[in-house]
Amino acid sequence: MHKTPVRSWKWSIALGIALTIPAVGAMANDSLMQMAQNPNQWVMPTGNYTGQRHSTLDQINTGNVKNLHVAWTMSTGSLRGHEGQPLVVGNMMYVESSYPNHVYAISLDDPGRIVWSFTPDQDKFAPSVACCDVVNRGVAYGDGMIFANALDGNLYALDAKTGKVVWHAKNADPQLGQTQTMAPIVIKDKVITGVSGAEYGVHGYITANDIKSGKQIWRAYSTGPDEQIKFDPRKTIDGATQKPVGKDSSVKSWKGDQWKLGGGTTWGWYTYDPKLNLLYYGTGNPGTWNPTQRPGDNKYSMSVMARNPDTGEAVWVFQMTPHDGWDYDGVNESILTDTTIHGKTVPTLTHFDRNGFAYVWNRRNGKLLAAHKFDPIVNWASHIDLKTGRPVVNPAKMTKEGVNVKDICPSSQGSKDQQPAAYDPVSGLFLVPTNHVCMDYQAFNVKYKAGFPYVGALVNMYPYNHGDVGGRFIAFDAATGQTKWAINDRFQDWGGALTTKGGLAFYGTLTGYLRAVDLKTGKVLWQFKCPSGIIGNPITYTHDGKQYVAVLSGVGGWAAIGLSNDLHKATEGLGAVGATASLGDYTNLGGTLMVFALN
Amino acid sequence: MHKTPVRSWKWSIALGIALTIPAVGAMANDSLMQMAQNPNQWVMPTGNYTGQRHSTLDQINTGNVKNLHVAWTMSTGSLRGHEGQPLVVGNMMYVESSYPNHVYAISLDDPGRIVWSFTPDQDKFAPSVACCDVVNRGVAYGDGMIFANALDGNLYALDAKTGKVVWHAKNADPQLGQTQTMAPIVIKDKVITGVSGAEYGVHGYITANDIKSGKQIWRAYSTGPDEQIKFDPRKTIDGATQKPVGKDSSVKSWKGDQWKLGGGTTWGWYTYDPKLNLLYYGTGNPGTWNPTQRPGDNKYSMSVMARNPDTGEAVWVFQMTPHDGWDYDGVNESILTDTTIHGKTVPTLTHFDRNGFAYVWNRRNGKLLAAHKFDPIVNWASHIDLKTGRPVVNPAKMTKEGVNVKDICPSSQGSKDQQPAAYDPVSGLFLVPTNHVCMDYQAFNVKYKAGFPYVGALVNMYPYNHGDVGGRFIAFDAATGQTKWAINDRFQDWGGALTTKGGLAFYGTLTGYLRAVDLKTGKVLWQFKCPSGIIGNPITYTHDGKQYVAVLSGVGGWAAIGLSNDLHKATEGLGAVGATASLGDYTNLGGTLMVFALN
Repeated sequence: MHKTPVRSWKWSIALGIALTIPAVGAMANDSLMQMAQNPNQWVMPTGNYTGQRHSTLDQINTGNVKNLHVAWTMSTGSLRGHEGQPLVVGNMMYVESSYPNHVYAISLDDPGRIVWSFTPDQDKFAPSVACCDVVNRGVAYGDGMIFANALDGNLYALDAKTGKVVWHAKNADPQLGQTQTMAPIVIKDKVITGVSGAEYGVHGYITANDIKSGKQIWRAYSTGPDEQIKFDPRKTIDGATQKPVGKDSSVKSWKGDQWKLGGGTTWGWYTYDPKLNLLYYGTGNPGTWNPTQRPGDNKYSMSVMARNPDTGEAVWVFQMTPHDGWDYDGVNESILTDTTIHGKTVPTLTHFDRNGFAYVWNRRNGKLLAAHKFDPIVNWASHIDLKTGRPVVNPAKMTKEGVNVKDICPSSQGSKDQQPAAYDPVSGLFLVPTNHVCMDYQAFNVKYKAGFPYVGALVNMYPYNHGDVGGRFIAFDAATGQTKWAINDRFQDWGGALTTKGGLAFYGTLTGYLRAVDLKTGKVLWQFKCPSGIIGNPITYTHDGKQYVAVLSGVGGWAAIGLSNDLHKATEGLGAVGATASLGDYTNLGGTLMVFALN
Repeated sequence: MHKTPVRSWKWSIALGIALTIPAVGAMANDSLMQMAQNPNQWVMPTGNYTGQRHSTLDQINTGNVKNLHVAWTMSTGSLRGHEGQPLVVGNMMYVESSYPNHVYAISLDDPGRIVWSFTPDQDKFAPSVACCDVVNRGVAYGDGMIFANALDGNLYALDAKTGKVVWHAKNADPQLGQTQTMAPIVIKDKVITGVSGAEYGVHGYITANDIKSGKQIWRAYSTGPDEQIKFDPRKTIDGATQKPVGKDSSVKSWKGDQWKLGGGTTWGWYTYDPKLNLLYYGTGNPGTWNPTQRPGDNKYSMSVMARNPDTGEAVWVFQMTPHDGWDYDGVNESILTDTTIHGKTVPTLTHFDRNGFAYVWNRRNGKLLAAHKFDPIVNWASHIDLKTGRPVVNPAKMTKEGVNVKDICPSSQGSKDQQPAAYDPVSGLFLVPTNHVCMDYQAFNVKYKAGFPYVGALVNMYPYNHGDVGGRFIAFDAATGQTKWAINDRFQDWGGALTTKGGLAFYGTLTGYLRAVDLKTGKVLWQFKCPSGIIGNPITYTHDGKQYVAVLSGVGGWAAIGLSNDLHKATEGLGAVGATASLGDYTNLGGTLMVFALN
């Protein structure tokens, strides 16, 4: 019934092969990988390891999606931003709310029945150092456990049946400005999580904990000596576009020991190629936002990293935005597909960066294959030099201390932020929720103090040309840079995308509409006004043979941080309010799980 | 299309006559009364002045209600209890959330679009003295203004078009334990509101403010000298079952000056008979909950009052529970209908009291016509003496200081609390959401201090017989005491009822189901799982010729005060937790407006 299209079929074969290849480390989660190939469930934050956010379910399709309606709902009990998605494992759904990070196990047999819930005791200081709202991006599953990051840096392993804490590990410290908002990823016998806090001079890292005991197995930093980065330049893979030059080249790309406050936090989406045994993720901005204060390339902030999950060793690293002056974090998702470039099919990693370019790499070695603007308004750089991988920066848009540089596109929120794109294997296009927002950026000098903001820039954001389009949902060919169609929205499209074999893309708007779009034409075939703006990511699954679509409604995040609990008393959230000043006319705070089905 | 049934038709005639009768006071809101006869809108908290909560709309009916689905939704941005209902005036909907009391004007032409919102600056002390959650019961409309009570005792008049504050009046002071949770009522040129806080020794009253200026026109107390009560015993209406005996008889029913802390707060639902020019409402418990501390009848706590809204003068008063020892507040709604008793049709007021008896009075003079138990488990009194109007108390269930009296039915939450019943003019039955909860009650000595709790009892509540039925939704004949049918629910049915000419009753459960019930059979024809438990009251209206049903989902209130923001860390809210201990397994906090329509 659910035939896998050719591209996914190839991928499945690749996974199948991977299962037979002996790999370093135990394969405790072979079962997870198999579960992820079952479209009736949604067992990983990104659906499966590819990050394609594509489902082969097609009961709901272009012909009948007009009959989609709300099947059941559940308040999450939390008012702030919900950037995650439910998991569906067996007959259960698992959801994590924004801070205070309620975790729920919900019965699908008795929809909305809460089988268990868990709310961690948290360091009450955590919300005050969460730069951009106290969001959460969801839980992970593995080995009969649910893994949930709490904002205050605790990773909890919960018995999936009972909710009882099996173990917990402290991976971040709010007293140092460190928080955790990302969804963990489970790879074999490890649970891997990152850290937030580059606005507090945090020294970014990722941590691997043992799935059974929670014991820390390894930690790898984004900046610093090779030993901390876990990077052996001698092992540099042939074909990589960017190769480290000499020992501790990361340190040398900073002035003095600034790398210790170097940012490069790791709060985005993680994907994994079992065949290559490589984990992919991005690193965030260098500290501070004032580039004049930190000469050099500031490696490896603003980079995509490929690591061996068994050891943490970095196999290749690619820095998208050297010497950042715009806050173009590199944390956006890495989507693993096969891409045909110049007639040749390559195993690729496609990454829609905050800086407005869609990068396509050979994911084996980090060789850059393509880098196109996915929003034509991008003006901070003319293009990416394919040989060096470096942007050709527009000098008029380079920021520096004491100067208010105007009309830089995109804004610090990027042409896309964390909202994950999806892939349509039929067309080979990516469905990308984007921000169509520009900014004025004034850097200033700032001093570091642990736990205090270390930002160093005033940023004023506004929709492009001060117009009424703040976001665009686009169908984009990453290999050629062509936009097949685009839907213009009033505000940033801050929620993620989902594609289905039913010929549909689903995405949510900041104003609260969940939409089903015809993948071929970009026509909105159906929409529903959810209780709150959507910054979460739709998923799909079946229960008792019937297909459902689920999404977390609950506005907030950087896009909507200006919406306070006392509405119409908007707080300036790193300049985000300018782009969403009237969002309060359309929606309110409030987390709700929404589940849809055909009549 | 929407023919008015005979009983309502009679009522309309009565209204029609009223409009031609010269009355004391200006008739600024004749238009409001006319609007309330248009079933396409819902212009008063109770629908119209009768409090019948009946609609003559029938597009949605027993035949097609199975096709009801969610049309649109809106988060209210508030996590606590929503005991109110939307108003629909023209093409706008008006909603007030629980504290912090956001008020929204929502477009029906662009559903969910917030035309304006208003959040008052409040005395931050208010939530700490709200005995039973920071609930709100909705706004009122009149003369182009929306009237909204804030928890901290401010009544706001807001321009219905712009949300701008026209005036505000301070009618309660949280520093003295006074709060406001009720919906105002607009009568002619006045806005009338009550006060909460009988758990803080508040001296209960109601206040009439001038609709144009907000100036206080009169204030009338529940206890104290005749002058404060605005009661002239010389004018006692003939036929009243309970007549005041002598001057200041209220004072004489208390020991010393205890009446000054006498409670009798006025936080329930208000109704009005334009023909008789009488306002009806109830008064709450006397302070303290310890009856040993306050000998006497404690008049006029636990009473229904009929007042002339022009002057505030009390015309008749009836005390349901003299010398209360159970916290059986008398604030429940007064429903105005014509009732046939012994073959004679009488203009009546029917009141389902917390004490478990359904009282039927001649609403002209307070003559008691009937008083039947509406839940057979009631055991604190055997019956009501129709001649004196007094309950015949079961001595074994009379509480006193230092004694833990067990198994009293109903509990302090009453056989019904504030959740308003509805009337079905076709059958003459009332649809009553009830609590099937009993208690152990231990009174203790307590001293008064302004702004501090003045409760004086420990109460442990549990479903009747410690069973699994905590609430019953019943179809009840108030004249005969017969229950035609009943639906058993796991928890208290704490949300209100709505009846329609479509042959349906709507009500919500604490677990979050909004239900449509066949009025004839009690069969549940449709239900939907809302984001949060329902303690609000369904309404219905039309827009562009299509019928909608709307309800506020958002659990809380006394029934669910144990649900805290940190779930599974339930707080004991005056003993409410016992009856709802496992409610967190079914639902979460979170206010959401839910609007339903046929496919």
